[in-house]
Parts: sequence; structure tokens; C-alpha cells
Amino acid sequence: MQVSHDIDALREKSGKEWKDLFDSRFRSVKFPNSSGIWNKREWVLPHVEDKDIVSSGEGLSHLFSSERLTKDLDLGGLWIKQCGISHTGSFKDLGMTALLSQVKHMLSNGVNIRAVACASSGDTSAALASYAAKAGIPAIIFLPAGKVSQAQLIQPVSNGAKVIALETDFDGCMKIVKEVTKQAGIYLANSMNSLRIEGQKTIAPEIVQQLEWEVPDWVIIPGGNLGNVSALGAGFEMAKNLDLINKFPRIVLAQAEHANPLYLSYLTNFQEFNPVEAKPTLASAIQIGNPVSVQKAIKTLKTFNGIVEQASEAELSDAAARTDLYGLYNDPHTGVAIAALYKLLSKGVIRKGEKVVVISTAHGLKFTEFKLKFHEGKISGTTPSLGNQIRVCKPEVGKVMDEIGKFLQPKG
Amino acid sequence: MQVSHDIDALREKSGKEWKDLFDSRFRSVKFPNSSGIWNKREWVLPHVEDKDIVSSGEGLSHLFSSERLTKDLDLGGLWIKQCGISHTGSFKDLGMTALLSQVKHMLSNGVNIRAVACASSGDTSAALASYAAKAGIPAIIFLPAGKVSQAQLIQPVSNGAKVIALETDFDGCMKIVKEVTKQAGIYLANSMNSLRIEGQKTIAPEIVQQLEWEVPDWVIIPGGNLGNVSALGAGFEMAKNLDLINKFPRIVLAQAEHANPLYLSYLTNFQEFNPVEAKPTLASAIQIGNPVSVQKAIKTLKTFNGIVEQASEAELSDAAARTDLYGLYNDPHTGVAIAALYKLLSKGVIRKGEKVVVISTAHGLKFTEFKLKFHEGKISGTTPSLGNQIRVCKPEVGKVMDEIGKFLQPKG
Repeated sequence: MQVSHDIDALREKSGKEWKDLFDSRFRSVKFPNSSGIWNKREWVLPHVEDKDIVSSGEGLSHLFSSERLTKDLDLGGLWIKQCGISHTGSFKDLGMTALLSQVKHMLSNGVNIRAVACASSGDTSAALASYAAKAGIPAIIFLPAGKVSQAQLIQPVSNGAKVIALETDFDGCMKIVKEVTKQAGIYLANSMNSLRIEGQKTIAPEIVQQLEWEVPDWVIIPGGNLGNVSALGAGFEMAKNLDLINKFPRIVLAQAEHANPLYLSYLTNFQEFNPVEAKPTLASAIQIGNPVSVQKAIKTLKTFNGIVEQASEAELSDAAARTDLYGLYNDPHTGVAIAALYKLLSKGVIRKGEKVVVISTAHGLKFTEFKLKFHEGKISGTTPSLGNQIRVCKPEVGKVMDEIGKFLQPKG
Repeated sequence: MQVSHDIDALREKSGKEWKDLFDSRFRSVKFPNSSGIWNKREWVLPHVEDKDIVSSGEGLSHLFSSERLTKDLDLGGLWIKQCGISHTGSFKDLGMTALLSQVKHMLSNGVNIRAVACASSGDTSAALASYAAKAGIPAIIFLPAGKVSQAQLIQPVSNGAKVIALETDFDGCMKIVKEVTKQAGIYLANSMNSLRIEGQKTIAPEIVQQLEWEVPDWVIIPGGNLGNVSALGAGFEMAKNLDLINKFPRIVLAQAEHANPLYLSYLTNFQEFNPVEAKPTLASAIQIGNPVSVQKAIKTLKTFNGIVEQASEAELSDAAARTDLYGLYNDPHTGVAIAALYKLLSKGVIRKGEKVVVISTAHGLKFTEFKLKFHEGKISGTTPSLGNQIRVCKPEVGKVMDEIGKFLQPKG
């Protein structure tokens, strides 16, 4: 389903009126303004009534900053937008609240929808199943048999979704989900459904709102299937069209080197785009060689004077670990974005004193294996001094103090 | 360190003035009101200056509600306070922001503190290490060697804490941490430090604020070491003393049957209290037989016409799984609290039409093993129909539709 907004009608409010309205609703304790999506409902799905809204308090995620980190990087400001600290642990919640609310709206209007379905082995399944359970609507998840474990799918399993492992690959699953959703009152929830973009785009006005309507110089976002970067752009465009902001940030799209088709296209100034065969990457959610939303993403990057950067497995791991030392707990996708920040700083593209927002897309708690591997030294090429180990010690105060003493000595 | 508040001075503001002040800050994007602890700073640590506040946006967690669940339980209102959807994934963040901010305040005033330390194998370590890393203060974690895995400690390991495995049991670790923190400019962060209670108690006014200053009939909270229930009580008492509310909720303290010393004491009307040897429980964070804060907890329960309920391993697992079907993703401790709700409803203690808040203390993402075990049918005595499995199917539309058809048929 495509959503279009009547910008002229929306322009009847001035930029200041929109900002005042949004500020009055921000973190309101009242439903539905207690959601970061529905407190901007006129920009999302204005026709959906309160009774059909399916919300679990998504959005409104913290804009983490560390004075020490900002100073160490010589930036004018650095914020990590913590989209992973959310109901199901990833930014996918932002889109799913919009999708399920629209489905409930259609059900209220007599449309025959018996279930929602998607093909996904990760965060999308988790968000779909949780929001569908909230709405009381059956959810069906397709995945390739033998390639995804119960552990990866324990969220949708817990939320009571029908999880079907098909004896085929991921493309085969997409084919089936498209067939099935054609014929049977089963609604397609994959990211070609633009309802999800409507929810996700609120991230842009929410960031500037949290910065007291100041536009940062840069926003860095990790990308695989590339729906998220066009959602980010759409949010900034709407905010500028409606006079809430008067300039754009530059956008950096960060890809894993093992799944970098857009990076390669960027090197040709987007003259060429060729799908690649994605290699396994720790940033598993963006291990995509032929992104569905590539054309939208290129358009967005052109509008936002954008850059594509890539990060190797070692670079993304080091970047995540390095910034964990400032109190974060980064997942590997956020690691890709932070690695891009480090690389663009060292190239002098992002400059001293500039203001940067990094979008963190998932909670580190979803990636325990990644953290373990890193600190056990099992990711090749990473910086050994960033690894940390548990020390074993006899329970004697003297011995313990010796151990602590080494730790407390200032490093080099 | 003990904290006392000058209630007479605080009473210079009326209840309405406090509510208006807190409401005006609740929506703030500005530091430090972007924290649910520091937007109530006069009640927490009023002497700590902005520059010393160590915040990662803790508090302000969503008050989840499901119309369907509320109706199915025949309640007047049911809200799950999602304390686990937070920076480190548990309610411990609420106390750690207070503790680290006070430490930073002391450092600013020339006190010699070289590190903060605790003995803990779980959420406390994770929160301490993260907030210490944010503050740039070394953190030291003690744990019993051989009993805790790197996976359980990967959060503090990632945050750069010095993690020391002592060749002793947990009590031996507590002994060492107390000795070490006596002598060396190392600050004790275990829960006998009442600074943490100051932060945690904001949960009570935050809940009533999110309910537009209406007091629920019941608040249910899981408890092991029992610091959290006295913090909850302290928050409600302060809110009542300062006229923000005019009555108390009743408090239910929920224990795992495998670690139920307070439940046994409750059966004697708190005439007797005897530590027990806690047996292993899925609710591992409350597997405590001799709780440090038992006397405070009993005092709180007497003030709040309190009840202690217990939940078996099967009951806590079923309760978590049953409510996951409404879109939650409960950890086992939240399961204990929800099981108490079900039991008190069936006993007629909590009655139809009443309003209930359940405190969820951690994110389900921290307990993947628990979820897997449940759905693999490996927790004895649980309800088989609540389990969910992945189905394998050939990639043929007809076969898939057959499989889906079974799922979509209304149950019974």
C-alpha cells in the first residue's frame, strides 16, 4: 500500500505551530501521544482512529550522548539515537505500529484480513509477531528451513506467531509469501509495504525535536535492504517542506563490506548499480546483496548530499567495542555506523566541531554471540587491546588488591 | 551512604505544584530532565549538580497496556511497567544513575575514589559497569569462579569493567568486596548502598504520573533481595507526604517458590522470619534465601496492606508465556509477578474491576534460554498448549495454505 500526504493541507499550520504541537505531545502520558509515532499522527496515517491504533510505546528512544566521547572525537556534538531500546529491541517497531494499525483500521472497515505475514528471520519477524499479538491478529512468519535456529526466532515463537520453515532459500520464502498474500486475506508485511516507511520516517523529526529543532550536520545510518535510509530522508523532507527545519543534514549510509552493493555504486557516483552476492557478516540483518529499496535510497542520498561508507568485519567490531567503553552496548549494525564515523573523521570528510547523530538500530542484547566472539579474540583482525577478559583470583584481600592495582594504574 | 530528605522544606510546594513541575519536565528533551530520575531530582539527590549527573536516559519506561488482556482478566485496568526496556535492560539503571552521579559529585569535591565495585553476576554488574563507563570511572566486579559464565557477564566485560572471578562462593565474594571497599578508595555499589534506593523509588511517582496521578489499587513487584519493594514504598510515601496522591495502592511482593523466605514469613503474619536455602529457579536474579533488605520490606508491606505471593517454576513460566500472547516478551521475574496476579485473581483477593500495575524488572532479551526451554517443553509441569513450535513445510502454495488453514481456524 502506498501512502500519500496532502502537503498543502498540512501547510495550513506554520512550522512553529507544528513544533509547538509536537512539543506539547512529546512524552505525553496519554494514549496515543505516549507513542513517538502517533504523537506525529498527521504525518503518518491521519485517517486511523484511536481505537484502531496498535501501540506498545514505540519511538521516543533516548538520544545518548557522552561528553567524553564527543571530546575524544573532537566533535561539536555526538548523539546515538537508541532505536534498539524499544519494545522488541529494534527500530522495526516504528514501522510495525503503523502497519498493524492500518490493518486494524481496514478490519474495522470490513476488509477481509485473516492474518499478516512476512518472510524474515530476524527483527522484522519479532516486531510483526509482537504487534500482531497486541492487536489480536494472527501472524505468519516464513523462513528458510535449516538456516535459522529457534533461538533466532524465539521472539515470534513466544508471541504465538505461526512460524513456517520452508524447504527453500530466502528468495523462495519471499516468492511463497507473495503468492500466499495474493490470494487468501493474508496481508503482506515485508518492507515493500510502504506503511512501514510511514512509521519509520518519524525518526527524523524526533531527532531534531530532541535537539530542540536544531539540525545536525550529519546523520549516519546502517543499511542493507535500504528502506530505512529513504524513511529517514522522507522524514527530513516533510519537516523541511512544512518549515520545521530550514536545512538538511548530510546523510551517511553505512554498509558492511561483505554486503556493499550501494557502496560500490557510490564509487561510480551512482552511475551503475549491480547486485552483489553478500558474504556472511556479523551485521547479519544487513547481509543483503540485492536491496529492495535501492532506487529510493539513491534518490535520498542525492537529495541529502549523501555518502556511502563501508566497514570490514574487524572495523565494525572494533568500533562497537571502542564505544562500549563509554557506556554503550552496541550491536554489530550500530558498529557499522560507528565505524563509518571513525573512517570519515580520519579522512577529514566529517570535520572537527561538526554535529553528528548515529542511528543505533538494535539492542546489543540481541547479539550476545557477537560480544562473546569479540572479547574471546575470535574475530580476525580486531584490536587486541580492546578485548577484555575475566580474571581468576584467590579470595585473599592482598591478592585481589594486586590485581586491582594493575587495573587502576593509568594506561600508558 | 544514607540519604535523608527535608520533607518540611519540600512541603513548601503544594501537591499540585509538584505535579505541575513534574509534568512540565516529563516531556522535556533537555538534559537532565530527559531522565526519569533527574526530572524528579529534588526527591532524589538535590545537591548533585548538572555537571556531575551520569545519565543514559533511564526511567520514563512505557506503561504497557492491552485492552484485550485487561478484558480477559476482567480488570478495570492492567498496566505492565516496562522497566526492562532500558539502557542496560533492567530496572537496575534507575539506582545506578543515582549512585554514579553521587560518586562523581564526591570526586568533584575532592573525595578519593579510584573505582566503584560490586559483587554480582547479573543485572547489577551490567548497570554498574555501563554507568561507570559513562562516567569514566573504573568499575570492579566480583563473582564466584566457575559459577558464572562469560555470557552472563558479557555486558560488564564489554563496558571495560575489571571482572574478577574469586575462587569462593557468592558470600565469599561479598566478604571480599566489603573488605576491599573499606581500605582503598574503592566505593561499594551493592544494594546495601541506599543511594540506589533513591533512584529506584522514582518508579512510584512515575507510575502515578503516567496514570494521570491516579493511584492503582494494586502494584505487584517480584522480589529477591527485597531492596526494590522498599524503594517502591518509599516513593509512594514521599508522594503521599507531599500531597501528590491521597491514598496508597496495596503492594504484592511476588517470590519464586524456590526462594520464598518472605512468603513463609508472611504466612506467620511476619511474626517469624527464617532464611531459607534458595533452590535454583528460572528467576535467577531473585534466587536469594537470606535477603539483605528483609526488615525494610516487611515494614513496607505492613504500611501498604501488603501481600506476599509465590510462584512455582511452572506457574511463572506459564504466566510469562500466556501474556506473551498479548504482545509482551516477559522475562522470568516478570513471570513471577504475573503468576501472582493470576493466583490472586483466582483466589478473589484481587477483584473484578480493580486496577493493577505489574512491575517488569528486566527485558526478555536477557533470557533467551528461558524462552527456548519453555517452547521446547523442557520446563516440567507447564501447560503444553502454550508452547509454540516452528513447522516445516514444502515450498508449495497448496501445502502452505493447508498449514495456515489449521492455524487460522478459530480455536475451540
